[in-house]
Amino acid sequence: MKYLHHPDREEIQLSSVLYALSDPVRLFIISEIQRSGERSCGEIDVPVVKSTLSHHSRTLREAGVVHVRVHGTQRLLSLRTEDLEYRFPGLLGSILEAYERTGEKIQ
Amino acid sequence: MKYLHHPDREEIQLSSVLYALSDPVRLFIISEIQRSGERSCGEIDVPVVKSTLSHHSRTLREAGVVHVRVHGTQRLLSLRTEDLEYRFPGLLGSILEAYERTGEKIQ
Repeated sequence: MKYLHHPDREEIQLSSVLYALSDPVRLFIISEIQRSGERSCGEIDVPVVKSTLSHHSRTLREAGVVHVRVHGTQRLLSLRTEDLEYRFPGLLGSILEAYERTGEKIQ
Repeated sequence: MKYLHHPDREEIQLSSVLYALSDPVRLFIISEIQRSGERSCGEIDVPVVKSTLSHHSRTLREAGVVHVRVHGTQRLLSLRTEDLEYRFPGLLGSILEAYERTGEKIQ
């Protein structure tokens, strides 16, 4: 099975998390997987091509925001809620709430 | 007096705010002005050249995070706490708390 690197919770940097979430498509992705739990890239309904979605998935993974599990040809994304809560209590919740509240549209 | 554009509070976008705060120097700047209130760029002790500081100030202003007041040759920065709280309740506080907690260093 292919190994994908994920930063340890202690290594997760605030600036990297904020950068990973500074894009409307990535905000949409985390909002979706927060609601539904683990999902494959293919199940996330965003108007971007597959390579762009892979790029977003990688940015979120490298920042420590999502965990990506490789299952056959699928990549299954889940939020690292516990790790983020441990590192930055309340942060993810306030960002998701701000996103739901203002409903920023995907360009 | 030179006019600098600031977005209206209703125009402030979550992704732009998160992008503006996704840099250790800009996180340091807002942490400083949150503590001290309005400060000039010259009073903020960051290890970057003046033009870089101007760039950071502009990024924060255009995202709606800071207000910049021109006073003679000085530019005075203050946090748009009320506008951000109105738009995204709790967000700025949770980011500043996360910053204080983990003490991300300026590279």
